[in-house]
Amino acid sequence: MEGNERPENTIYVGKKGVMSYVLAVVTQFNNGAQTVVVKARGKLISRAVDVAEIVRNRFVPEAKIGNIDIKTEELTSEDGTKNKVSAMEITLSK
Amino acid sequence: MEGNERPENTIYVGKKGVMSYVLAVVTQFNNGAQTVVVKARGKLISRAVDVAEIVRNRFVPEAKIGNIDIKTEELTSEDGTKNKVSAMEITLSK
Repeated sequence: MEGNERPENTIYVGKKGVMSYVLAVVTQFNNGAQTVVVKARGKLISRAVDVAEIVRNRFVPEAKIGNIDIKTEELTSEDGTKNKVSAMEITLSK
Repeated sequence: MEGNERPENTIYVGKKGVMSYVLAVVTQFNNGAQTVVVKARGKLISRAVDVAEIVRNRFVPEAKIGNIDIKTEELTSEDGTKNKVSAMEITLSK
């Protein structure tokens, strides 16, 4: 595949239903992506794990879980207060 | 350290506050554990990530995140229905 400069395909998991993000990941794979990164923060982290597991078990059986990273991010709210929140990235590759 | 047969120190994250589990992990390290495994299922997965991050950032700076595994477990409820739930294990080592 050409275009190595293209950023990795990343899906940010938000507050929609799990299947919206599953569909987004599956679509990336169907469009030729070899790697899709699923990202989430805070309470949405568990949803990101569900997304990765559903993609792998039901839709893209050849996808493997690659690296899983966790880290802490600092968010600054409008009034200047800083809050720490956990973040996770799951790399799926086929 | 002798006693290699001893099972790894495992903390199951449940519905108590995050700090209960942070304290449990820190206690294991203080008692000589080199490795502590933090496990959680379903929505509690995000809490397990918080636990690992707080331990590492605030209490045991020499602890490193080792392997992070995700998988799907099947739970059978009393009436025989089977439900799938995501599970995660985070290995912390110093």
